[in-house]
Amino acid sequence: MITVGIVGVTGYMGGEVLRILLQHPQVTLAWVSSRSGGRIDEFHPNLYGCDIRLITPDLATPCDVVFLALPTEVTMKETSRFLNMGCKVIDLGAAFRLRDRSTWEDVYQQSHSNWALAEQAVYGINEIHKARIAEASLIANPGCFSSAVILALAPLVEQGLVDNEKLVVTGMSGTAGVGAELSRAAHHPEIANNLLAYNVVAHRHSFEMEQELSQLTDNNVSVHFTPVYAPIVRGILAVCHAFPIKAVNREQLLDLYCAFYRNEPFVDAYDLPKEVNVSWQYKPYPWLSSVAGTNYCYIGLDYDPKRNRIVLLSVLDSLGKGGAQVGIENMNIMFGLERTTGLLGRALHP
Amino acid sequence: MITVGIVGVTGYMGGEVLRILLQHPQVTLAWVSSRSGGRIDEFHPNLYGCDIRLITPDLATPCDVVFLALPTEVTMKETSRFLNMGCKVIDLGAAFRLRDRSTWEDVYQQSHSNWALAEQAVYGINEIHKARIAEASLIANPGCFSSAVILALAPLVEQGLVDNEKLVVTGMSGTAGVGAELSRAAHHPEIANNLLAYNVVAHRHSFEMEQELSQLTDNNVSVHFTPVYAPIVRGILAVCHAFPIKAVNREQLLDLYCAFYRNEPFVDAYDLPKEVNVSWQYKPYPWLSSVAGTNYCYIGLDYDPKRNRIVLLSVLDSLGKGGAQVGIENMNIMFGLERTTGLLGRALHP
Amino acid sequence: MITVGIVGVTGYMGGEVLRILLQHPQVTLAWVSSRSGGRIDEFHPNLYGCDIRLITPDLATPCDVVFLALPTEVTMKETSRFLNMGCKVIDLGAAFRLRDRSTWEDVYQQSHSNWALAEQAVYGINEIHKARIAEASLIANPGCFSSAVILALAPLVEQGLVDNEKLVVTGMSGTAGVGAELSRAAHHPEIANNLLAYNVVAHRHSFEMEQELSQLTDNNVSVHFTPVYAPIVRGILAVCHAFPIKAVNREQLLDLYCAFYRNEPFVDAYDLPKEVNVSWQYKPYPWLSSVAGTNYCYIGLDYDPKRNRIVLLSVLDSLGKGGAQVGIENMNIMFGLERTTGLLGRALHP
Amino acid sequence: MITVGIVGVTGYMGGEVLRILLQHPQVTLAWVSSRSGGRIDEFHPNLYGCDIRLITPDLATPCDVVFLALPTEVTMKETSRFLNMGCKVIDLGAAFRLRDRSTWEDVYQQSHSNWALAEQAVYGINEIHKARIAEASLIANPGCFSSAVILALAPLVEQGLVDNEKLVVTGMSGTAGVGAELSRAAHHPEIANNLLAYNVVAHRHSFEMEQELSQLTDNNVSVHFTPVYAPIVRGILAVCHAFPIKAVNREQLLDLYCAFYRNEPFVDAYDLPKEVNVSWQYKPYPWLSSVAGTNYCYIGLDYDPKRNRIVLLSVLDSLGKGGAQVGIENMNIMFGLERTTGLLGRALHP
Repeated sequence: MITVGIVGVTGYMGGEVLRILLQHPQVTLAWVSSRSGGRIDEFHPNLYGCDIRLITPDLATPCDVVFLALPTEVTMKETSRFLNMGCKVIDLGAAFRLRDRSTWEDVYQQSHSNWALAEQAVYGINEIHKARIAEASLIANPGCFSSAVILALAPLVEQGLVDNEKLVVTGMSGTAGVGAELSRAAHHPEIANNLLAYNVVAHRHSFEMEQELSQLTDNNVSVHFTPVYAPIVRGILAVCHAFPIKAVNREQLLDLYCAFYRNEPFVDAYDLPKEVNVSWQYKPYPWLSSVAGTNYCYIGLDYDPKRNRIVLLSVLDSLGKGGAQVGIENMNIMFGLERTTGLLGRALHP
Repeated sequence: MITVGIVGVTGYMGGEVLRILLQHPQVTLAWVSSRSGGRIDEFHPNLYGCDIRLITPDLATPCDVVFLALPTEVTMKETSRFLNMGCKVIDLGAAFRLRDRSTWEDVYQQSHSNWALAEQAVYGINEIHKARIAEASLIANPGCFSSAVILALAPLVEQGLVDNEKLVVTGMSGTAGVGAELSRAAHHPEIANNLLAYNVVAHRHSFEMEQELSQLTDNNVSVHFTPVYAPIVRGILAVCHAFPIKAVNREQLLDLYCAFYRNEPFVDAYDLPKEVNVSWQYKPYPWLSSVAGTNYCYIGLDYDPKRNRIVLLSVLDSLGKGGAQVGIENMNIMFGLERTTGLLGRALHP
Repeated sequence: MITVGIVGVTGYMGGEVLRILLQHPQVTLAWVSSRSGGRIDEFHPNLYGCDIRLITPDLATPCDVVFLALPTEVTMKETSRFLNMGCKVIDLGAAFRLRDRSTWEDVYQQSHSNWALAEQAVYGINEIHKARIAEASLIANPGCFSSAVILALAPLVEQGLVDNEKLVVTGMSGTAGVGAELSRAAHHPEIANNLLAYNVVAHRHSFEMEQELSQLTDNNVSVHFTPVYAPIVRGILAVCHAFPIKAVNREQLLDLYCAFYRNEPFVDAYDLPKEVNVSWQYKPYPWLSSVAGTNYCYIGLDYDPKRNRIVLLSVLDSLGKGGAQVGIENMNIMFGLERTTGLLGRALHP
Repeated sequence: MITVGIVGVTGYMGGEVLRILLQHPQVTLAWVSSRSGGRIDEFHPNLYGCDIRLITPDLATPCDVVFLALPTEVTMKETSRFLNMGCKVIDLGAAFRLRDRSTWEDVYQQSHSNWALAEQAVYGINEIHKARIAEASLIANPGCFSSAVILALAPLVEQGLVDNEKLVVTGMSGTAGVGAELSRAAHHPEIANNLLAYNVVAHRHSFEMEQELSQLTDNNVSVHFTPVYAPIVRGILAVCHAFPIKAVNREQLLDLYCAFYRNEPFVDAYDLPKEVNVSWQYKPYPWLSSVAGTNYCYIGLDYDPKRNRIVLLSVLDSLGKGGAQVGIENMNIMFGLERTTGLLGRALHP
């Protein structure tokens, strides 16, 4: 059994790690912590009756692996502490996601206090970095939009099929992405009948996307990304547009995606039916509600021969394959478990 | 291993039975059927990639237990067929829920074609009928509102504490309760900003509530029930009002409920905090989202000493404890399994 | 032209007063005020481009009538000030709604600093107090739930048809009722898939309902009221249950309601169709979305002869007939205008 | 007074024309028609109590102008009939929107039965075609997405500032755009927690966008458009990405847009604040809810100097500026009225 600690368990991300681990057959929960103390169901009503008490972070004891769901500044210090205790660390935050220090410092508008850790961390898209994740002590778990977009665009970029400087993405996110802290943008009377674009040209996840996709090619990669909050709770839909620089067709593209993800248990791609109303019941379709609460990512593909554009619809849950659950998938890899252990739960329908 | 068949798997109720059984450690799926044929993920996109083909009902073979999710008329015939094959039957519909034939025929506006089956069936509220369920061949699984209201009111009625003729309930339901068939009441542009009361004085479930509560007392029981569709998907909130005929207080009522449900793994009761905004994070509260997709039912209790009214807030998921999952709980009881087997999954938060 | 000022215009209630008055043909806006200062569209994006600047409250000048949308403590002081200036005052808050001082002080948990004003104020349900409103200098505009419930129950109580001590109401409200201030109960990730009962036995509006209905009868009146937040924005649905103490039937009840509201331009009652799905398109139905943003209140009526219960579905908008717009209707009455002036806008469909 | 008829008044588009015209000071309603007959509030519950009866289309009499909200095939015939009667016609459908016959026949997959009418029709974006609209007998009212996108991109294309072959748009629409007819894509249990892209590379409105933008430039224009249904009811958000081919900066772009729309009463553009949470209360922001039910279109602008991309957020209501209301604006122009007559209503907040 793997012993696990969770730091910052009161937020949405930490709570999702816990929800999944409670059903994980190879995990023993060592402790969960938060400055607040208290019982877990005071913060996560879905866990009503679970007899779990929060410890304060200073009481954390060594265990096999620690999940961190903390503000960036605290993460730096806690990561060192747990690595020094001999724990592996899976960081669900943004402290170690970028490989270029000046980019990180620009994007997060602070100086980085422990860049050696950032250099040691492995970026946690396991469809790309599986071997390195298996050996890692520190995982930088990817941003939610980053996961959706990197998984959608990686096959095209790696094959050199598209104009890498014109990858254009509109990402729509549920309000779980806003987090548990109250904010005007998540105030129900304001957002319930709204769609709210934000950080329109410079969302932080753009830089992760560009970093990871750049590693797959020799060309410069620009991801033109605009995020939008939609009045749903769970899930992300990334609408990705790419422009071929070689002759392509729908069948060939589909073959490429199927081959790329053939051995990946949580990612699947398919071509999109032409008519939603008629066909969704008879062909696969990347609906958000089908990935909510799960570790799955589905990618729907279409091609416009008239205008020569490829469209990829990528759906995942920002707390699932885009966050907490992919962290657990990475843990499975790090500890030599079957990668799908504890992660095969399905979404509700409806 | 128990072998299980599901008839009518393409609807929301049948799909939920399947979703849960796919993770049930003591169940082998024998077959799932629907007149439509096809693959399961053509109807339930959450099960994308599950390699399950639907058989037509005539190809169904004997197995230990069959779940039926069918229109009433078809249920009559299929129930006989499967019982004759030696299968136990758990009917998720309304064919066998009422003990009084003329009431049933009034309520469902048809003559009942096989009343002997109705007499044989055990009503599936296992907190009340556990011993009989363990011996039964045919379960009449309760209506969703019925479960929420019977569980909320049973302790009061059994103790003779309240005016049994003035049990007043407003039940709010998500649109999963409308079912998969298209209807004006579930057309998103119409219902999204609406609350839609329906069958205002004569909902069919009223008669189940009265039947089951009457068995707990010598007095006449009247449940004055009004249902409302709300623009959520999963879950029911029943706001139940009861008027004490003996002196009561909050502590005593809470003790009663805690005692009544002490040994029940899926039902829990607690007193309500006075202020929602401040306290929900620190005291249990019966939020719908905490039971969505689960087999749990939570009951919050309050008492108004000034006006002498008891209020019970009862929440459950109409496809969970109010439908498919309680059917599986009943199956566990019928086959001598640990009652919670396969049913301990938790809701998402958020 | 009537000159009007609005104090506390940045909240949802003040903003709705302004939205309506901008189209009112007999009103000149004197000023709008808030401690914050600024432009109106910094607080109400629906008024983008309106060239209206907020003044601070101390700069308010005399005008014909002032609308107050303020916290209770501030209201006391401001009401005196404006009355002394010679302005009429329409208070949209709770400072002057109750006739009994000790009840008010119990309910609002503070001592009342100017009870003489409370005694002078006229409660603003104009279907009942029209004549006194016409003469008033100070209107205590009713609470949103109060309006919905008083309008629904007044005909029954006045006629002595029902048990006045067993008026049972479940009131559902959109989140506009929470107000503009951020709160956990209105945090989108928490409320979007939820129904949240609150102040389950002692909502403040209960006391207004009892006060007003008591004036119509010699008996003691108890309104057993439970409010619920639903994940819609605008509107209230009150499901009111009443128990006849005399023989009644549906036609007679409908006649009573039609007679009671015959001359009232904004309230209408009708009997409910038996089947929602089939009939809503052919018979009137009290849908929330049909009153959102308007000053209308619709009351649907049904009667259960088997269990002898009357059900009334009352819908209105908490910022419309339940708030800001009924305040303007009262203003029209106070200044001798046609009562419907500026208030005939219809809801959107869908 | 202008006499007006509405054909096809039972749908969402026809109902919105009627809602606005009921308040229009220069319009007399001649008749409204639908094959169904009946009273208006049997189809539009927001118009409860309006004493308007539907005539069958054959009883339509001559009037100044007729609004058509019909299926394409019926439109052809009815347009001729009403033009022959001497009525002007404003078609809210798609029969006459394209200038190129073979494109139209490809897109709508039928042969066009009266192309002479298509050649006579004026495309109803009045910010571009005002002079011709003033003289027209037949208006082809634009598609909802088309209006949002053409208004957003016209200034850039006209100035030759961007790569016209790489205009990339993700359009999000509320479910009012699905229409009143029941469909799986608008079934509440399916769409409420979903985002549903559809017609991913070949939405019909793409061709209108390309046609209209092409008229502003000598270059070939390709609009790469993907539409998405979101679980809101009213409104469209188009996220438009464009790539400059000349040096640009934010201030210059903003000047361009402000100049382009200086004299347009219903379109306004502004630069986007960098932080939504903090700033939306202090700077203008194109929120959907601020245009719902109105004839306004707001365009927010941002520029990414690092990656050289312009982003335009365009919001309007598909039944307002994207449909029925712009039709009425066009009517005002055709009859020499003040263009804003009857159209200055504001959205609700919240």
